[in-house]
Amino acid sequence: MNDSFSAALERSAAIEARIATHPHELRMLTGDRPTGALHIGHYFGSIRNRLRLQEAGVEILQLIADYQVITDREVAGDIRGNVHHLLLDNLASGLDPERSTIFTHSAVPALNQLLLPFLSLVSVAELQRNPTVKDEAATAGITSISGLMLTYPVHQAADILFCKATVVPVGKDQLPHIEQTRVVARRFNERYGATFPEPGALLSEATHVLGTDGTKMSKSKGNTVELRMSADETAKRIKGAKTDSDRHITFDPEQRPEVANLLTLASLCEGTDPVLIAEEIGDGGGGGLKKRVTEAVNTYFAPLRERRAELAADPGFVDGVLRTGNERANEIAEATLAEVRSAMGMTYP
Amino acid sequence: MNDSFSAALERSAAIEARIATHPHELRMLTGDRPTGALHIGHYFGSIRNRLRLQEAGVEILQLIADYQVITDREVAGDIRGNVHHLLLDNLASGLDPERSTIFTHSAVPALNQLLLPFLSLVSVAELQRNPTVKDEAATAGITSISGLMLTYPVHQAADILFCKATVVPVGKDQLPHIEQTRVVARRFNERYGATFPEPGALLSEATHVLGTDGTKMSKSKGNTVELRMSADETAKRIKGAKTDSDRHITFDPEQRPEVANLLTLASLCEGTDPVLIAEEIGDGGGGGLKKRVTEAVNTYFAPLRERRAELAADPGFVDGVLRTGNERANEIAEATLAEVRSAMGMTYP
Repeated sequence: MNDSFSAALERSAAIEARIATHPHELRMLTGDRPTGALHIGHYFGSIRNRLRLQEAGVEILQLIADYQVITDREVAGDIRGNVHHLLLDNLASGLDPERSTIFTHSAVPALNQLLLPFLSLVSVAELQRNPTVKDEAATAGITSISGLMLTYPVHQAADILFCKATVVPVGKDQLPHIEQTRVVARRFNERYGATFPEPGALLSEATHVLGTDGTKMSKSKGNTVELRMSADETAKRIKGAKTDSDRHITFDPEQRPEVANLLTLASLCEGTDPVLIAEEIGDGGGGGLKKRVTEAVNTYFAPLRERRAELAADPGFVDGVLRTGNERANEIAEATLAEVRSAMGMTYP
Repeated sequence: MNDSFSAALERSAAIEARIATHPHELRMLTGDRPTGALHIGHYFGSIRNRLRLQEAGVEILQLIADYQVITDREVAGDIRGNVHHLLLDNLASGLDPERSTIFTHSAVPALNQLLLPFLSLVSVAELQRNPTVKDEAATAGITSISGLMLTYPVHQAADILFCKATVVPVGKDQLPHIEQTRVVARRFNERYGATFPEPGALLSEATHVLGTDGTKMSKSKGNTVELRMSADETAKRIKGAKTDSDRHITFDPEQRPEVANLLTLASLCEGTDPVLIAEEIGDGGGGGLKKRVTEAVNTYFAPLRERRAELAADPGFVDGVLRTGNERANEIAEATLAEVRSAMGMTYP
């Protein structure tokens, strides 16, 4: 992994350089699973980075991965509602529907069809070696892996290759999937002729914001601040956050992780140094810290929340964004599928 | 297997009874992989049975499984040519394009999309237990099973369920796939509401015609008589058939399998008893036997070959059959996919 990891880092740096110089030559594929409303962990962990690329001029394809909801759970839940919230969250955050294509998996059959030729290029042994799939199954407490879970990295290759994306922003844990996509592209090209570019992972230095209990943010743990929350709900959630008994606030991620996490959050929202914020709070204790964080979060997200409320009041517009996105994704997918069928000799009169 | 085998036999008998009484309520899905021209083994092993159901009034969906060509080989070969020959062979045999839908996998994205929800209903352990997949991999000398090979029984479930077929004529070796399809249908219905009928296998008493060397017919062994061969080519192929040194011809499948195979072939073509044919040949030896078989085959297939030549001279008609079939298969698949998306809650404005 070391060699391939350093190669991935180099590719990521090269992509970062091209974003600065040739943004319009790049196409980014990114996505979320519609399992619930987005929270500030998602925002600082990935959405902010997507918006940075949008501002730079990179074209964005934003996937709502509805079929991937059932990889690690039996039923999809209120998927229609979750898709709607995901749309609102993304649009309110600043994703520009004029410049990006927002679409759902299930509405783009030609994308999904690519799974078939791609599955012929990957061995079961390779699929079973994927460390991320193993980890995710273990985390979800899954002992009986489904066919969909085993093959989802190949489905993800279809997501990325259907639109010939060149950039995929991911965390380190998702690197095996991007490597799998590169392998699929390479093998397809070798077997049937040059068709797909090999995408590169854009490995951002992710900013991890933990939940209010100091553990990983997760809706099911009730430790998140959702983008859609009101200022009051936010205050309440932060008021319940874990701190420690030392009234003198310092930024010490090693010894005082919960306090440091709250300081990081304030720092992200205010755009200032967490050490400075700690000094300003001084002996204000947990109460002073939480007051500062609440103000910072509510101030930072106020415009987003206002836009979100406006958008929620205009469902016709939001529905239209998805409809247009799905239409455009279908056009792209159908063109790529036609190319694939032609390369494989599967075109009939 | 014994319990489920006897249950499958009972279902098959029930289907046979319904073919006699309510043929118009049945829909049959059947298919071939376009790996080459059809031979008389295919004809007596399956095509004749399909035509029997067509004559009875059962609706036929006839799949040309182009994506399944790459399950056990790397590249698809002259797939366009093979699809054309398969069309000619089927039409010349008597498949009526007015009453049946002939289509290719690769042209029906909505069918292929069903693979995704279906894969979520089947565990990897189940897929790996499928005895037919294991056997086929072993026969093809494959040590590294591809994702496509592992999952092809689920893809076959999509073939059968996209059109809600109620009858699938198969040999015993294909029963595990039909069982897998029934499981997929049942689980989908349980999880998302009644959507799919559970299809039944129609287990015909298959007539196995061996190749001219006494082993299984296989194009690569040069031991087949293809439907498209001329009378002279047929004579030549049968002349090279293996017999034995006993000039007195008898029908003895145990002790004289090659001679018995030729007698079976003559019997199928003439519609008479192989024992009687043997008696008529008497001391005519291998030469007399081959002369009789050649005449029987060439006489039986003469009208088919004539129609085939006429069809080959009218590519516009043949192309039109596939085009119409693909259009119709897409309509059916899109309607079923819409139902599936709705059942799963994946319908967006």
